[in-house]
Amino acid sequence: MKNFRKELCFNTQTRRAYINITDQVQEAIDESGIKEGLCLVNAMHISASVYINDDEGGLLHDYDKWLEKLAPHEPVNQYRHNDTGEDNADAHLKRQIMGREVVVAITKGKLDFGPWEQIFYGEFDGKRKKRVLIKIIGE
Amino acid sequence: MKNFRKELCFNTQTRRAYINITDQVQEAIDESGIKEGLCLVNAMHISASVYINDDEGGLLHDYDKWLEKLAPHEPVNQYRHNDTGEDNADAHLKRQIMGREVVVAITKGKLDFGPWEQIFYGEFDGKRKKRVLIKIIGE
Amino acid sequence: MKNFRKELCFNTQTRRAYINITDQVQEAIDESGIKEGLCLVNAMHISASVYINDDEGGLLHDYDKWLEKLAPHEPVNQYRHNDTGEDNADAHLKRQIMGREVVVAITKGKLDFGPWEQIFYGEFDGKRKKRVLIKIIGE
Repeated sequence: MKNFRKELCFNTQTRRAYINITDQVQEAIDESGIKEGLCLVNAMHISASVYINDDEGGLLHDYDKWLEKLAPHEPVNQYRHNDTGEDNADAHLKRQIMGREVVVAITKGKLDFGPWEQIFYGEFDGKRKKRVLIKIIGE
Repeated sequence: MKNFRKELCFNTQTRRAYINITDQVQEAIDESGIKEGLCLVNAMHISASVYINDDEGGLLHDYDKWLEKLAPHEPVNQYRHNDTGEDNADAHLKRQIMGREVVVAITKGKLDFGPWEQIFYGEFDGKRKKRVLIKIIGE
Repeated sequence: MKNFRKELCFNTQTRRAYINITDQVQEAIDESGIKEGLCLVNAMHISASVYINDDEGGLLHDYDKWLEKLAPHEPVNQYRHNDTGEDNADAHLKRQIMGREVVVAITKGKLDFGPWEQIFYGEFDGKRKKRVLIKIIGE
């Protein structure tokens, strides 16, 4: 069994952002030399997500509006977490809707994906350094 | 390390559907010959889910009503994704609540499950061909 | 390839509870002797979650209030699942928001975590015996 580890780094210019990282994950698989196995991709920070969905601008707009409706940023004093001096409680909630991680199959050295699957980094409390972990096992 | 891959195919008669696929996943594990390992089961399409919960008719009704409340199908023009000519933006949202994939343990050749765990395919934009991927690694 | 299996047991005094199990998962990894691999941690019951987020009291309060808003416990007769004699339909919904499982990387024998990542057992229908499964593969 082989294993491989890599980190991706982000520092978004906006509080919320949705970044397609599919190519970077495939590059990590290429570097690993693993042809058959599983690839874990997870946010290392608890106010961000890794998820799989469509890379379509209208949908990214819809996600952003919908998450803000389900877990609004303001008023920040509605959240007890923000009593600690943070203003990012909503980001911890949004991240639970979108998820921490994805596990994807590797077959013949490639991401084993359906026609529209794309891996996204979802940032909900940006303008700071954040990391994503890629861990691959297989052979 | 062994690995095994299989696809399941669906074409539901209704827009939304909840289909118990537990037996089909166990059959794939049997075919693989893998006794100890991990089994990934994921929707290959981005308007569908694979999730684990109870196979109880009342609960399936409750999920359907609840998802429609959190991410309503209509009016379809509330979503910018639907400006592309699609009418399935709500399906992309519902799928994030229910999740893309499950990873399940295999122990002594069987799904290592609690008493009520059942694997479901959740369809939110049906009446078309869709696939689920099963990828197993272990030995 | 090595594999390792362990169960954790819970019986909370309250209907809902959020319990940090990070140390118990690390202990299981230590017992397994696995240095590089993947660790699955999942609720074995369908009205509970395993998730990763911050161990901060204000946030746990915010999660509890938010989940109750998105999937209220009462009135219990709003859910068809409760026609079976149960009163826990809301717990099955809350668990989908927070998720069934996490898959975490093991690197050099340790949970490969960002600075604030902590593993939680989220109970939404407690006061009864429940279990969590830890399954580790690697070498």
